[in-house]
Amino acid sequence: MAAQTGPDAEAWAHAQTRTQSLTKPPGSLGQLEALAVWYCGWRGDARAEMHTPQIIVFAGNHGITAQGVSAFPPEVTGQMVGNFNAGGAAINQLAKLQGARLDVHALDLERPTRDFTSGPAMSDPELLAALNSGAEAVSAEADLLVVGEMGIGNTTSAAAIAHLLYGGAACDWVGRGTGVDDAGLALKADVVRAGATLHVGAKGVGVLGAVGGRELAAMAGAILQARLLKIPVLLDGFICTAAAACLEAAKPGALDHCMAAHVSAEGGHARLLEQIGKAPLMALDMRLGEASGGAVAIGLLRAALACHNGMATFAEAAVSGG
Amino acid sequence: MAAQTGPDAEAWAHAQTRTQSLTKPPGSLGQLEALAVWYCGWRGDARAEMHTPQIIVFAGNHGITAQGVSAFPPEVTGQMVGNFNAGGAAINQLAKLQGARLDVHALDLERPTRDFTSGPAMSDPELLAALNSGAEAVSAEADLLVVGEMGIGNTTSAAAIAHLLYGGAACDWVGRGTGVDDAGLALKADVVRAGATLHVGAKGVGVLGAVGGRELAAMAGAILQARLLKIPVLLDGFICTAAAACLEAAKPGALDHCMAAHVSAEGGHARLLEQIGKAPLMALDMRLGEASGGAVAIGLLRAALACHNGMATFAEAAVSGG
Repeated sequence: MAAQTGPDAEAWAHAQTRTQSLTKPPGSLGQLEALAVWYCGWRGDARAEMHTPQIIVFAGNHGITAQGVSAFPPEVTGQMVGNFNAGGAAINQLAKLQGARLDVHALDLERPTRDFTSGPAMSDPELLAALNSGAEAVSAEADLLVVGEMGIGNTTSAAAIAHLLYGGAACDWVGRGTGVDDAGLALKADVVRAGATLHVGAKGVGVLGAVGGRELAAMAGAILQARLLKIPVLLDGFICTAAAACLEAAKPGALDHCMAAHVSAEGGHARLLEQIGKAPLMALDMRLGEASGGAVAIGLLRAALACHNGMATFAEAAVSGG
Repeated sequence: MAAQTGPDAEAWAHAQTRTQSLTKPPGSLGQLEALAVWYCGWRGDARAEMHTPQIIVFAGNHGITAQGVSAFPPEVTGQMVGNFNAGGAAINQLAKLQGARLDVHALDLERPTRDFTSGPAMSDPELLAALNSGAEAVSAEADLLVVGEMGIGNTTSAAAIAHLLYGGAACDWVGRGTGVDDAGLALKADVVRAGATLHVGAKGVGVLGAVGGRELAAMAGAILQARLLKIPVLLDGFICTAAAACLEAAKPGALDHCMAAHVSAEGGHARLLEQIGKAPLMALDMRLGEASGGAVAIGLLRAALACHNGMATFAEAAVSGG
């Protein structure tokens, strides 16, 4: 990969100076202060505003569902895309609430990826096409990006990614997804172990091809594209983070323009966030996917920027002790 | 106290049934589901909307500041009230962002409470007046209440309340407040210990009179009044929670209409939330007070209600597996 674009050091420093001059004890807005400074740094403006957030939900189908790893049948992926398009899903309500543009991209739902216990989930051309779909979906006018997914079976895919990238035991990375029982959980661990054994040696973005899915690769492509466009990203849950982690594995620092919106109820997510060195903004036990956690966190970023941009300084307000 | 009004059991049950019918795996919106159901139950409407949130900031001065317990001089209380009235503080930005009415009540700033290491902070008439100020400040038109405070020295007061209510060691309850150093922290613990020793045996709301402050009593009064008006409350940080805890100590269940917006960076807050049995919605290391944490959490409640009210059911969307 080429050298990565970084944040604007001058805007970052000015934003940091500003936050220390505002009428509050230093640091008393906690993570909201770091959030505002991070955003301003990446936008190259010490008092950056956020007006055009974009949420993209990518959907894909997974051959691994043939192994019985999900509590829901695979046709639910397409049905939920219909629900997104009809405005009935959680992400529709959250996008509307946050004033965000919502785009939904269903990626070849009629062609599930291959069962990754019998071969690579995607061929190289399929992987590249999915990465490109993600990159192309990002609006150049967006000033914040949240990516999410819908894909029955994809917590299994995400667990296999995490297991290949970071090792440990398969059961460290599997969770109940949409709600499998104990037997389903054990089966998921077996499937993840088998996938990791078959694809041992896969690295970086190649892991997405080996055990990933189209929607995971598309999220990775969108996150890469956002970096080029200087668009900060809020990472959603376990599956989004697994996709992003492949970028970080390929090039440390690749996710510096990303913040973790939340830690989900899915067992492996907290572990995965530790691996990529991201502290989550929220811990609401959400485990829905479809960018919902990221969408909720848009409100936190708005709150952070409202304070950062709107507050008086100690000097302006004639308050002692600044 | 008279019997307390409770939530509407029927609305609560209908809201619970509705959340289970929406197009998501059961429970996958995590705490947002419980938040929406709680709100609907207390509002008596299974699809309650929230349009007129009210934020009230009470300010008071504390005689205990003579002991040197704060990093800021006491005149900052009044200066910050000026900043609130001029629109320059964090809470102004957050109230505007959340579309909330903001009321600021400065309570006899020219008459600080008495140093509680030498006697009760307030006389009974002073305590009652402060409780009433709080109750009267609540708008009958509000459909959500967030109360907060400004008062140099009031983390010391809050720590003394917690120590009197729940025992333990004084140092379990004191924190750095607006930013005292190690010596200041030790001094705060000494002061809290002395106050608790002097006022041992104080109970319930009487604790507010013994070691509290006008703004703390006003928050308690507002929370009581909200209960009568069926207005759900988001509790802010350590000081707000300490004031509220006096109500819970007086009558278990008195805070059932309240949710904890966040756990602050102030050491004793997490411990205090455990004592009143509330899990915080957020943990952003905020420690500003002035209702700021509660104001940020309004966005989470909005997100919860947007999903609860706007999502399609499995039947409406023809999605399998509901």
